[in-house]
Amino acid sequence: MTPQLVAGLEPPYYTAVFTSVRPDAPEGYAETASRLQEVVSAVPGFLGYESARTPGGIGITVAYFRDLESLDAWRLDAEHRAAKEHGREHWYESYSVHIGRVERSYGFERE
Amino acid sequence: MTPQLVAGLEPPYYTAVFTSVRPDAPEGYAETASRLQEVVSAVPGFLGYESARTPGGIGITVAYFRDLESLDAWRLDAEHRAAKEHGREHWYESYSVHIGRVERSYGFERE
Repeated sequence: MTPQLVAGLEPPYYTAVFTSVRPDAPEGYAETASRLQEVVSAVPGFLGYESARTPGGIGITVAYFRDLESLDAWRLDAEHRAAKEHGREHWYESYSVHIGRVERSYGFERE
Repeated sequence: MTPQLVAGLEPPYYTAVFTSVRPDAPEGYAETASRLQEVVSAVPGFLGYESARTPGGIGITVAYFRDLESLDAWRLDAEHRAAKEHGREHWYESYSVHIGRVERSYGFERE
């Protein structure tokens, strides 16, 4: 199946860019990631996310939100916070989060 | 060598998030990507970039710029534009670009 990008976003919206360095498959990571996908999908104003990870390299996840309120609801979610704390203790060597307001976007799709 | 994230960014700055679907190693891609890394590194106000790609999945590149002027200088660069046109014709199934103004960022690094 061809991977799909998040499409149809109308500015303004917000991006939460999460970049990280961690081992390839740490214990418990896949289960937590799967659960957090369910949680974020239920946040009002969540518009979708994309994730990529180079084996042996870094990972980048971009989550799209309608406004800062929806992004903050996700940021402050109890399960999300617990997972981040666990991740700092057990999984990540480093990570960065960049919260951006998108005023301009464009795309291409092969016909 | 442990991969490194771009660090030390002070808001406000801009992120250009480029997400794409393409075959794993199309002809000519690596050479063009390598050349464009040289070009973007010479753009005044360019602060760094990160890139990840899941084999068989999507690719995400995030480039960081001091302001919209530096981002536009990159967007309008002749080699960059020629590469994007070539990419639309030969490499990409789809891509999206999201230009965001970052007011807030934070990070974690294991001690």
